[in-house]
Amino acid sequence: MHTTAQLQEILDTAIQNLRFPDHPKQLYDPIRYIINLGGKRVRPLLVLMATELFGKDAHDSIHAAMAIEVFHNFTLVHDDIMDNAPLRRGKATVHEKWSTNTAILSGDVMMVEANKNLAKVNPIFLKDVLDTFNATAQGVCEGQQLDMEFESRDDVSIDEYINMIRLKTAVLLGGALKLGAIIAGASEKDADLIYQFGENIGIAFQLHDDILDVYADPLKFGKQVGGDIIANKKTFLLLKAFELAEGETKQSLNSWTSYKDFDIKEKVDTVRSVYDTLDVQNIAKESMNSYLDRALEVFAQIEVSEERKSDLLSLTNQLMAREY
Amino acid sequence: MHTTAQLQEILDTAIQNLRFPDHPKQLYDPIRYIINLGGKRVRPLLVLMATELFGKDAHDSIHAAMAIEVFHNFTLVHDDIMDNAPLRRGKATVHEKWSTNTAILSGDVMMVEANKNLAKVNPIFLKDVLDTFNATAQGVCEGQQLDMEFESRDDVSIDEYINMIRLKTAVLLGGALKLGAIIAGASEKDADLIYQFGENIGIAFQLHDDILDVYADPLKFGKQVGGDIIANKKTFLLLKAFELAEGETKQSLNSWTSYKDFDIKEKVDTVRSVYDTLDVQNIAKESMNSYLDRALEVFAQIEVSEERKSDLLSLTNQLMAREY
Repeated sequence: MHTTAQLQEILDTAIQNLRFPDHPKQLYDPIRYIINLGGKRVRPLLVLMATELFGKDAHDSIHAAMAIEVFHNFTLVHDDIMDNAPLRRGKATVHEKWSTNTAILSGDVMMVEANKNLAKVNPIFLKDVLDTFNATAQGVCEGQQLDMEFESRDDVSIDEYINMIRLKTAVLLGGALKLGAIIAGASEKDADLIYQFGENIGIAFQLHDDILDVYADPLKFGKQVGGDIIANKKTFLLLKAFELAEGETKQSLNSWTSYKDFDIKEKVDTVRSVYDTLDVQNIAKESMNSYLDRALEVFAQIEVSEERKSDLLSLTNQLMAREY
Repeated sequence: MHTTAQLQEILDTAIQNLRFPDHPKQLYDPIRYIINLGGKRVRPLLVLMATELFGKDAHDSIHAAMAIEVFHNFTLVHDDIMDNAPLRRGKATVHEKWSTNTAILSGDVMMVEANKNLAKVNPIFLKDVLDTFNATAQGVCEGQQLDMEFESRDDVSIDEYINMIRLKTAVLLGGALKLGAIIAGASEKDADLIYQFGENIGIAFQLHDDILDVYADPLKFGKQVGGDIIANKKTFLLLKAFELAEGETKQSLNSWTSYKDFDIKEKVDTVRSVYDTLDVQNIAKESMNSYLDRALEVFAQIEVSEERKSDLLSLTNQLMAREY
């Protein structure tokens, strides 16, 4: 069994060794660009960790891990077009640096590249691997669709929101883990349990992000604190605040989310104080913890020694431990 | 062995039975819309015909045929965005009817749906089927990229043009046939031969289209004759004309392809008369026939009785027989 650091090295090497054709340059340069922007590579790491959890070598699932990473980057390229985002990891997005058409088509060919990597897995697992990968990819697309629809809706419920982040974010974590499990020859039951684990930690991670966006320590947070508030992003906190607010508080929330011109600091401070009044931070934490608990509960049911499980638990804790 | 008409019925039924989720409606309605716009369904028909050519039943490859049809429609949705096309088969394109974002994302999920259909083929052929499908999909993306690049280049050679239409159009015909052959358990040699057959007829079809666009009988042609000339589309004929033209003829070609305002009929008539002067119609026909001959040559090498081969030959003749 490799340590997490060793797995990350295996991953880095595999990513460096990903080869895309040279020609047409305009089609393949954006792929090399987005893949090399970096990122934490959590998703492909989960593929490898699941394979080792179930007693096989990470190298067995390295192609599936690459498929997940290339697919994830494909979704970033297309989401950035749809969200009109200028920056990704501090650098120009593909559609900004090249063009929207290039970003569409390079994204499409990344999906093909992801499938090419997938086709390299051991043929005995191929059918199961494809079914899991395709269900995951479909969920991610549905999540992005719901996310876009929510922007123009003002009746989004907390349940709908949780379902959206489940699809947009969490199924990919669950799918990554399940792929690794399938390739290790895990039982169907264990493969489903690790999927459930991934999906639940995925939802917890996103709720954690929602909270951090408002309450993070600005010195430790990678991006602008309050970004979601400024953009009226319908996070768990904003939706819950709208659900609970009454009278003047409700009016204040309505006003501040409808202003076109505003002082950024004033808006963030005001909305945050509404959140404080309504205690939505704690309600969000409770919800987050319930998903985390459920994740740990299903993880406990997986029939593997505690020792083998410890690395995945450490990673989970580490990812959840970003400070407020 | 089914007749071609029977195969078309099998196809129609399978297309009617394609099911996409109901929700999110905005994501899946465009898929139902584009699939039901119709079209000749030549590509999925080729999958089925190849399977029957090699002695198996068309139903064995129906899922692969659906994968090819859904993939083809996905490329139409994304190409229409990139080409800024308002109409597809006489109806509004997806990005016009919904939005560009919807067209991007519905297209993405169509790619996933294509792959889901593909995953249903007999597992013993799955790896080969995936490899062929992915190589095909990649070729199609590369072809679209080259096609877009050619718009802004004025040094496109005939060889480059042939390579572009090979990728954009012909590999999908070859790939469809090869998928059908693989699923019938054809030898690797025969599967490659039928691929070559498809690729060569694909190039011939496109050259035929280029010629028809200029010389078709307006009463029998489905769209505006001269459309390529009006749009300065770099077809075989225009590229060959630029290659051959000298003196006044060259000047006329340069002028008419640079005018922003022009009388449509005058432009079409003038450019067509330049083509006539330079005999590019016949040069294009010679090239077309050379690809057709090559197609028939490789087809003859396939080790299957003449009787079994006759339906595919009839279809080829029928598709090439649209009148000038």
